[in-house]
Amino acid sequence: MEERLKKQLDFALEMDKQKGIGRQTYILNALRKENDAEHGWHLAIMTLLLSEYSNEKIDVSRTVAMVIIHDVVEIDAGDTFAYDNEGNETKRERELKAADRIFSILPKDQEEYFRGLWEEFEEKKTPEAKFANAMDSLQPLMLNNAADGLTWREHNVEAKNVLNRAEKKIRAGSEELYKWAVNMIEENIKKGNLLQ
Amino acid sequence: MEERLKKQLDFALEMDKQKGIGRQTYILNALRKENDAEHGWHLAIMTLLLSEYSNEKIDVSRTVAMVIIHDVVEIDAGDTFAYDNEGNETKRERELKAADRIFSILPKDQEEYFRGLWEEFEEKKTPEAKFANAMDSLQPLMLNNAADGLTWREHNVEAKNVLNRAEKKIRAGSEELYKWAVNMIEENIKKGNLLQ
Repeated sequence: MEERLKKQLDFALEMDKQKGIGRQTYILNALRKENDAEHGWHLAIMTLLLSEYSNEKIDVSRTVAMVIIHDVVEIDAGDTFAYDNEGNETKRERELKAADRIFSILPKDQEEYFRGLWEEFEEKKTPEAKFANAMDSLQPLMLNNAADGLTWREHNVEAKNVLNRAEKKIRAGSEELYKWAVNMIEENIKKGNLLQ
Repeated sequence: MEERLKKQLDFALEMDKQKGIGRQTYILNALRKENDAEHGWHLAIMTLLLSEYSNEKIDVSRTVAMVIIHDVVEIDAGDTFAYDNEGNETKRERELKAADRIFSILPKDQEEYFRGLWEEFEEKKTPEAKFANAMDSLQPLMLNNAADGLTWREHNVEAKNVLNRAEKKIRAGSEELYKWAVNMIEENIKKGNLLQ
């Protein structure tokens, strides 16, 4: 078999591992927690659905590709909970090492393309990266709200941290969706799902 | 909240259910079986990776959107195993009914867009639909091969049926990937993973 196709199929098989990387968000009426592959798929649908609310015009297909690949480094580095301060201090270093290993499975041109998408997502500077990051924050908010705040209650999450994160990640991508998120967070404060 | 955004977020939340629709393919070194959301995500990555092998030039972003949404009707209709002849007789009717309910959650323009993608995938006529269907067949072959044919052995699947399906679904999208698939199927016949 041609060397190029072999590398591509090796990478495709490596991706299977993302189905085993657990996140903190409950899904399916709080039946179990989500994994990275399901999360990436859900963000892709939401990007297709909600791109009209982006603050700036975006290339939707680039944004979809970005959300599909954005968590790939967690195969080695694991998922770091958004409100875990200690874990977030070492996150960047762990993820860079993972990126070196995982993207190097690919042929050179595709290594550059996929790694570029991942770096762009991390840097949060382009309109596409801002919108992708907005989806990445909006989706767990939506699911936590649907599960009556179970993840927040489990981790004693403070409302101000959720509001800060929404301000940073959702507002930068979409003022409209940020408004929806703030309303929803306020309802969860009233219900006692978030600490004040 | 604006009616349009409410419909879009209702649909986004409905999509969560695909994470609970089980397929027959084993993942993660045969640890458990895959669900539709994971499958859709994996096809999206594979489409981005392998589009250069399409027999005809394709619009990659349309193809990615298609594979992301292609199993959505299984929320109501369930997954029908590829080699279940009885289930496949009633499949179309069950899926049409599901499509009516699920896509109608969306605002009209998006209902047409997403339903259009699903119908296009089902009809297998456009270059994009042919390639999306090739990914849909190639991915479980790749995973079954990685799991030493466990799904095939469990269901006593006959080699000729797998070869027929690869011929119909993979070859129509990619001669190159079909060649790879045939080699891989032949290896699994030798290993006794597929019945002759």
